[in-house]
Amino acid sequence: MTTITDLYPDGHTALREVGLRDGLQMVKVFPSTAGKKRWVAAEYAAGVRYFDAGSFLPAQRHPQFADVRDVVNFLSDLPDAVASVLTLNMRGAADALEGTARQLDCVVSATESHSRRNVHRSRKEALQVVTEICRLRNQSARRPLVAVGLSNALGCTLEGAVDPLEVYRLIGCCYEAGADFVSIADTVGFAGPRQVAEMVRAVVGMDDGRPVGVHLHDTRGLGLANASAALDEGATIIDASLGGLGGCPAAPRATGNIVFEDLAFLCETKGFKTGIDIEQLIGLRAIQAEEMPGEIFYGALERAGLPSSVMKGESAR
Amino acid sequence: MTTITDLYPDGHTALREVGLRDGLQMVKVFPSTAGKKRWVAAEYAAGVRYFDAGSFLPAQRHPQFADVRDVVNFLSDLPDAVASVLTLNMRGAADALEGTARQLDCVVSATESHSRRNVHRSRKEALQVVTEICRLRNQSARRPLVAVGLSNALGCTLEGAVDPLEVYRLIGCCYEAGADFVSIADTVGFAGPRQVAEMVRAVVGMDDGRPVGVHLHDTRGLGLANASAALDEGATIIDASLGGLGGCPAAPRATGNIVFEDLAFLCETKGFKTGIDIEQLIGLRAIQAEEMPGEIFYGALERAGLPSSVMKGESAR
Repeated sequence: MTTITDLYPDGHTALREVGLRDGLQMVKVFPSTAGKKRWVAAEYAAGVRYFDAGSFLPAQRHPQFADVRDVVNFLSDLPDAVASVLTLNMRGAADALEGTARQLDCVVSATESHSRRNVHRSRKEALQVVTEICRLRNQSARRPLVAVGLSNALGCTLEGAVDPLEVYRLIGCCYEAGADFVSIADTVGFAGPRQVAEMVRAVVGMDDGRPVGVHLHDTRGLGLANASAALDEGATIIDASLGGLGGCPAAPRATGNIVFEDLAFLCETKGFKTGIDIEQLIGLRAIQAEEMPGEIFYGALERAGLPSSVMKGESAR
Repeated sequence: MTTITDLYPDGHTALREVGLRDGLQMVKVFPSTAGKKRWVAAEYAAGVRYFDAGSFLPAQRHPQFADVRDVVNFLSDLPDAVASVLTLNMRGAADALEGTARQLDCVVSATESHSRRNVHRSRKEALQVVTEICRLRNQSARRPLVAVGLSNALGCTLEGAVDPLEVYRLIGCCYEAGADFVSIADTVGFAGPRQVAEMVRAVVGMDDGRPVGVHLHDTRGLGLANASAALDEGATIIDASLGGLGGCPAAPRATGNIVFEDLAFLCETKGFKTGIDIEQLIGLRAIQAEEMPGEIFYGALERAGLPSSVMKGESAR
């Protein structure tokens, strides 16, 4: 049985590589299984420990995740690596629970319209799925964590602004359903740092000791400003992807997830401990570029390098 | 005679377009004078009021600023537009004071090595120049403001980390020399938001009522996170450039100034009043692209557009 502090110890900031799942939703050429393993192994060597390994979805319609079991198994052989997988229904959860993933990720939309559009369920039905997945997990041998990504929690392309009180209510329902933690998602990159700070502060205050995650997109350039605000208010699980891989179907030319390398640097400048060697991270993008030709990658550190003050091992201050 | 509250009224956040000065230091094809006027006029129409119009430097070595008088005159005809110019020596200041610029910008480096490398003067000599420029300004007809950009205040490619106490000492000297305000510059993009917050908080606390500016580069992706921190701590004059025009000679492939459009959006999400119509700003980059072919422009809003919640006129929250 996995406890939450096993995977997310106090005082540690967990940066999750979500490029293998969220990042692969819109790429044109999918990486090979060997390529995914090279990518994961290289990030692992640089100190990254949290990986969203893929989705348990029908392989015909989602071929980029056909090898999710392979990727999970590969990660499970790396000491202290935490593989999570997305499970959107009971079938996916049952399949995932046969494997060695240490965390199942579910999704609940903050707005009714997005819930119906995205997963063809009402929010109530989506919460029911979380409850059932948690029940199944409780009966499983390994009992991985169950996390819920609360999508569009900070704005919705369909409904516009989202009432934070509605988000807090849904998060309470997720905890009630048995989820170990929630991740507040700015799925379409609508949020600014003040809004993120207010929401993270409130959610951290809802339940003592439970970690709070954020999943931010850099769609409108505020991704790292939002991450900075989230870190300040106590979020400890932050999603990102190497090279900012990923996009948004609602804004085809927009950037995707926040850039992992730049996020790691942000954490370093703020004194949050991630265990990641940033110099080693820089340059890993070559693996992605080989595996996903034609894809656009983002990020400033890859171009500019670390500040000389940090490279010399001095404090960023 | 110009007073500081004439140009920078309380409760207003002044976003300064520095693309015409800082932005033009590294471009390959310089915009025509007509092109600069089109660019300025379009930003003015979108509500931008603060423009760094250029540098008073020898035209032979700095041809991109040969038309600085023209640009200043053009700006002076636009009601409430504030044209500032960079003056690095007495000759430049004397020339600028014959014109209608409402603000002269001087530079003092935070580190001795950078001061000698950048302006071939010790910091003490640079402060002496500020004193003399302020004296000349006091005898002038229009008496524009004098501002000092404190370059490398948050890190230096030559000396690494910079002692904040040294920065505070230099800022005190700038005030003593007669400067109306200082702008804290992260010239090479070394800083993170915690460091920016600490420094802005301290400088805002040094002198009641005097505004504090920041000049941030997005070299390592933290530009807007740093701007967000600066705004939270009371900085009210923020430099940026449309499309992020500008670079850093020390990091040739790195991005330049923070992106004006994205900064305006950040301010909007945080509730800071800038008077700028962001929708109108988006798309102005076409003027720059025509005038500076081959130049790379940055920014997320140009690609993704405003969130629908903001476009509908709802609050960003």
